[in-house]
Amino acid sequence: MKKTINTSPLSGFMELKPAEQILFNKIKNTIEDNYKLFGFIPMDNPIIERQEILDAKAGGETEQQIYKFKKGDANLALRFDLTVPLARYVVDKYGELIFPFKGYRIGKVYRGERPQAGRFRELYQADIDIIGDGELSLDFDVEVIAVAIKIFKDLGLKAKIRINNRKIFSGFFKAIEIEKEANDILILIDKWEKIGQEKAEEEIKKLNLGILKEEKIFDFLALKTFDDLEEFWVQNEIFKEGVSELKFVFENLTALGIDEKQYKLDLKIVRGLAYYTGTIYETQLVDYPEIGSVCSGGRYENLASEYINKKLPGVGISIGLTRLFDQLLKKGVLNTGVSTLTKVLILPMTDDFSISFNLANILRDKKIPTEISFMNGKMKKRLNYANKLGIPFVIFIGEEEIKKNVYTIKNMETGQQQEVVLKKLLNVINF
Amino acid sequence: MKKTINTSPLSGFMELKPAEQILFNKIKNTIEDNYKLFGFIPMDNPIIERQEILDAKAGGETEQQIYKFKKGDANLALRFDLTVPLARYVVDKYGELIFPFKGYRIGKVYRGERPQAGRFRELYQADIDIIGDGELSLDFDVEVIAVAIKIFKDLGLKAKIRINNRKIFSGFFKAIEIEKEANDILILIDKWEKIGQEKAEEEIKKLNLGILKEEKIFDFLALKTFDDLEEFWVQNEIFKEGVSELKFVFENLTALGIDEKQYKLDLKIVRGLAYYTGTIYETQLVDYPEIGSVCSGGRYENLASEYINKKLPGVGISIGLTRLFDQLLKKGVLNTGVSTLTKVLILPMTDDFSISFNLANILRDKKIPTEISFMNGKMKKRLNYANKLGIPFVIFIGEEEIKKNVYTIKNMETGQQQEVVLKKLLNVINF
Repeated sequence: MKKTINTSPLSGFMELKPAEQILFNKIKNTIEDNYKLFGFIPMDNPIIERQEILDAKAGGETEQQIYKFKKGDANLALRFDLTVPLARYVVDKYGELIFPFKGYRIGKVYRGERPQAGRFRELYQADIDIIGDGELSLDFDVEVIAVAIKIFKDLGLKAKIRINNRKIFSGFFKAIEIEKEANDILILIDKWEKIGQEKAEEEIKKLNLGILKEEKIFDFLALKTFDDLEEFWVQNEIFKEGVSELKFVFENLTALGIDEKQYKLDLKIVRGLAYYTGTIYETQLVDYPEIGSVCSGGRYENLASEYINKKLPGVGISIGLTRLFDQLLKKGVLNTGVSTLTKVLILPMTDDFSISFNLANILRDKKIPTEISFMNGKMKKRLNYANKLGIPFVIFIGEEEIKKNVYTIKNMETGQQQEVVLKKLLNVINF
Repeated sequence: MKKTINTSPLSGFMELKPAEQILFNKIKNTIEDNYKLFGFIPMDNPIIERQEILDAKAGGETEQQIYKFKKGDANLALRFDLTVPLARYVVDKYGELIFPFKGYRIGKVYRGERPQAGRFRELYQADIDIIGDGELSLDFDVEVIAVAIKIFKDLGLKAKIRINNRKIFSGFFKAIEIEKEANDILILIDKWEKIGQEKAEEEIKKLNLGILKEEKIFDFLALKTFDDLEEFWVQNEIFKEGVSELKFVFENLTALGIDEKQYKLDLKIVRGLAYYTGTIYETQLVDYPEIGSVCSGGRYENLASEYINKKLPGVGISIGLTRLFDQLLKKGVLNTGVSTLTKVLILPMTDDFSISFNLANILRDKKIPTEISFMNGKMKKRLNYANKLGIPFVIFIGEEEIKKNVYTIKNMETGQQQEVVLKKLLNVINF
């Protein structure tokens, strides 16, 4: 056996073995099932967009990472997130959508990043968004949190959602009359935990804002609780709006009956520079904080101002599915078990396969994934197929069985073998 | 409302409205569920490949249609089918797969075709393949037919699978000593039905094979039944192998209990020029033959000879999902009904949402997709949301209901409204 060409997938592109893929799909399905349970509608947008559509929305680092190419005269690009296609979709189909529009999207996006551990160039995102036409109730800011909490619970992962509101930053910057340095400060706050308080304070001093403003920033960054916020000296309109929105969200999380351990106020989360204008979220796995945020999002004033002169406010979250799976796999959190979805392997031992075909039809009608062993060769080799894949039951159909109208079923885990009639057979499999 | 940019999807890229997307996903799920029921394992390959991987497999027209581009130094390309990634995958993961390897893939492929009605540049294919290591039982040629028949039955579409075997062509061409013109003749046979017998015969005459060979070709093309095949003057080894394989397939379809109306021998199907070496299939919808083949495939000697010096025979089928859906939609076969998956809209009529949240949790735990109406405004507007989307039930929770610990449920189709306790509520919804 000699390879004549490099057949590994491209670097930064995840390609899973069967046992891993089965697990990945399980997680993907859990997310999708919950999106549906909360009333989100499936969407499926093209992976390729006009370059101008992406360029209007991309900025800075992202812009560099876009896969761009020409086909004929057209300037094309691969989508780098699922928000840009959502914005284009909502504008394009505006007249046909019912608002508030609740859509979910699970699909691949492309980022030509420098390949490194844990970074992918092709990655799944799993997003929900609720878009209003002109206005959108703050209750939806609560609902997306409820969705995220339910998903991580169903996945068996302890998650904690950190919640903040961008209006608090806006109000504060307005009060201390900072405009052009605001982004630099937000970037530092975003890195606060990573680089440590001391280093962050050093960096802020480098901005030369003067000792008065510096002190005010340090005071602001010492805020932790709702009481702190309410007693803070800044109380302009935008700041108060932020605090009141945050309080609304927290009160409703209590009304929803969500365990307080699953969320917390965190005045240091920022969620990037642009885009978000109200509530923002980040989610950490309690047992694996080093993975970073596995589900983030927030509220935005205007989904598609680049495409349309119309106010379309929204709120949404995005789960970075590929990265989450990769990290959980590497940490050994996931048990890659069987390499099959098949429950039953039927093993015909005569040349007449009609009884086997018939049983397979019956089992499949009962939604039991079933294979027939068509392999030639020794019994050991044929059983090995079931063993290696992890198929739990093998059913033997030989002359004896056909004559007596029974089946011999073997539990591959316990090794237990018994001769049963059809009804009993179904009980054994479904037990 | 003024658009500032063209927001329609690219020409040749399908993007569906909610009601359509819901139907599309239903069809996709029916296909996937059946692939699983027959024991196929999920695969998910990258959409981007190294150009050399595709170039090694692509030829002629396909080669022109590939989306190619560079990122950094790498020559990349978008996959144009799901077979090339399968071949690369099987070679790359050869040591970790259990053979016969049964894999399914449902994903997007890219073909930069000239855009025209019914042609797509981004299209879903839904494929299954069984790959053997060195050898592969002919029973699998039967199994893929059984899968296809089950799928179209579940979709409520009358389908007929036409079956042929490439070895019959090979044997015949060998017997009449035709080599270089073989492809031209196959192309003509492929077009036979479209252009008509007369025109096809004219074209064959243009090849200047001499009257003797022409006559033999016309005789060959008059063959229709197994009896014809067995009485034909060509009986070399490869021809006889083809006939015997075909007979095996038909005998087993009978043993499988499949209605004879669902398949037929068709000695004029060809399935392209390269690749297939044994059984070949095409599927037509009985009521819409003009759509052409909606599910095709066949047996190949060697999946990955371009990548590895190793014999990996296989057999598979591919459903052209995007094209199938598009055609059925245009013909009005599909009833685009509701624009939602939601079963229940809870409509709180007090400021305390906790009862509504609690009921939503109960319903979602019972796998009933549920929304809460967070809209402000008049009752009529809020009910309109349910009406327009097609949500079947609305549950009102007002002061009266909270006091009495009941729910008022309205069937949106019949208009019937009743006050019920929780247990009764669940019965009404699930009825």
